[in-house]
Amino acid sequence: MTTVNSFSARLISTEPGYVVGVDAGGSKVAAGLISHDGQVGFTIQHPMDTRGAEASLACITGAVEAVIAGSGVERSAIRGVGLGIPGIVDAERGIGVASANLGWREVPVRQRLNELLGLPCEIEEDVRTAALGEARLGAGRGLDSLFFLVIGTGIAGALILNGKLLKGADNIAGEIGHAMLVADGPRCKCGGRGCFEALAAGPAIAARARGKLEKGTSSLLLNLCGGDVASITAKMVFETAGQGDPLALETVEETCEYVAFALQFIALDVNPQVIILAGGVPRAGRQFMEPVLRRLERQAAESVVFSQTFHPEMVRLSALGDQVGVLGAATLVPGFLEY
Amino acid sequence: MTTVNSFSARLISTEPGYVVGVDAGGSKVAAGLISHDGQVGFTIQHPMDTRGAEASLACITGAVEAVIAGSGVERSAIRGVGLGIPGIVDAERGIGVASANLGWREVPVRQRLNELLGLPCEIEEDVRTAALGEARLGAGRGLDSLFFLVIGTGIAGALILNGKLLKGADNIAGEIGHAMLVADGPRCKCGGRGCFEALAAGPAIAARARGKLEKGTSSLLLNLCGGDVASITAKMVFETAGQGDPLALETVEETCEYVAFALQFIALDVNPQVIILAGGVPRAGRQFMEPVLRRLERQAAESVVFSQTFHPEMVRLSALGDQVGVLGAATLVPGFLEY
Repeated sequence: MTTVNSFSARLISTEPGYVVGVDAGGSKVAAGLISHDGQVGFTIQHPMDTRGAEASLACITGAVEAVIAGSGVERSAIRGVGLGIPGIVDAERGIGVASANLGWREVPVRQRLNELLGLPCEIEEDVRTAALGEARLGAGRGLDSLFFLVIGTGIAGALILNGKLLKGADNIAGEIGHAMLVADGPRCKCGGRGCFEALAAGPAIAARARGKLEKGTSSLLLNLCGGDVASITAKMVFETAGQGDPLALETVEETCEYVAFALQFIALDVNPQVIILAGGVPRAGRQFMEPVLRRLERQAAESVVFSQTFHPEMVRLSALGDQVGVLGAATLVPGFLEY
Repeated sequence: MTTVNSFSARLISTEPGYVVGVDAGGSKVAAGLISHDGQVGFTIQHPMDTRGAEASLACITGAVEAVIAGSGVERSAIRGVGLGIPGIVDAERGIGVASANLGWREVPVRQRLNELLGLPCEIEEDVRTAALGEARLGAGRGLDSLFFLVIGTGIAGALILNGKLLKGADNIAGEIGHAMLVADGPRCKCGGRGCFEALAAGPAIAARARGKLEKGTSSLLLNLCGGDVASITAKMVFETAGQGDPLALETVEETCEYVAFALQFIALDVNPQVIILAGGVPRAGRQFMEPVLRRLERQAAESVVFSQTFHPEMVRLSALGDQVGVLGAATLVPGFLEY
């Protein structure tokens, strides 16, 4: 199903041009018209076709064309297309190197989009794209260094220093989801053990709660899942923790200890101005943030070194919500929404 | 006592000029004449006078003047003085903000040295200075991103990205010595608990070995220290580990687990080309490096993400030895030994 939102009334001026920002994932593609001042105009979202690279590219170009047509903006006013995609991306060469979600390997995305649309295109990995969006227009607005951390079904990070993405020597800077926090801990999708992702991402939270239930501990979770333990999600764990359920509270405390641990290490390693949290787990809100901040505050109260960087506003939730993907993608177009 | 070394024969050419690099600490000041190609010429070392900022500054200028006089180079060929000092340094403003070792607070070092010597001067914190030296002339030569980690009586790090020091939002980037690795672990000098430094720096290694001895475990360490448990050092622990002593081996394994833990996190966080280790603990050599690399190799064998960055040459020992301080200091002078 295609959903359309139009806020284009405020975008009458075609003066400094527009960009189409596209956020493509394994299940859907979202695209939006973005003005030079970071306003989101006409947006569209439809299912992604992953039967092949050309099918996916057709989905993406279809979304771009629908945005241009639907917004009523002259094609000549479109300065370019920015696209965020999951997986490994070679942004300089414009190549989608590998994406499990899209089923891509070595797809010359920039060249194909340019051929299909006749517009300049830029691509970047989606977490890095979102980090750019938050840095330019969201919770990091006005700052030039930040760490962006998504905790959802996986854990991925991106680092912006001096207003630019740090990609790292092997293009994996920010991949702390696969830093080992617990020796011989639970197996991770990456093959490692005790990775941050295998301890604190949504599925890991649910699995730990299930493990406690299977030991016979009683919990409101059992009512909430209707006895179907396999259906327990991290969201249910946070929900029952909010109701004071001891098993859920313990699971949340463990999760927040891992998160706080990672955050203080990042803060002392690269010392960013802020750390921005996004994804389904931080969306639990106070139930998640309060135990994380409590730990960091205690550490700052004790350590004269950590106290030099930590203050409660240093760790903040993402501000762009669902629009972070298309807004971040718009920042990829050179000279548009840049610092 | 003042010691003098002269290798000045190879420094006859005065063509592209020289820099005097100075490494000042709480106990001594070392200075050397450095040529444009990174050769160390005439060097001098004498005790530091810490009875006051002016006394320390006189020690530093005395060392610089002795190097200029002793090397026989025309003063007009000296392009500047670079100085590394311990503590918190505001390099941009040229201020020694705070140094426990030197007893300094808010000392306008650059301005005073400039007045006293009539030469352009630049200052930087000593660990960062050493990192620049290794990056430009040592184990990181030819590379533009590295993490430099000193494990000695304390633990301090410095990060070079795109050929430049990353100082961080609060001037504490690289301070992972005060990252908490063990909740409620041993108390650290910074006031925190379970800091990396409180677990893996030299005094922490010695303290952990002593703790094991006090539980009655037998060990070759008891012979080596002549029964004076308080005199045990990290060096003794590595020495007896090399002789197969179980207590010492266990202490070394624990230490190397903490170090490997920190290294993999750094590698996945900022993804530098190399991590360079310096200080007394890594100087234990194979006895230290082998257990660290064994852990990292195992993690890389399991994790497809970590395997993208880890290879045994990624973690290496510093190459400049005792000259790292004066060589690093020489790189501070703009246009001299820069990338």
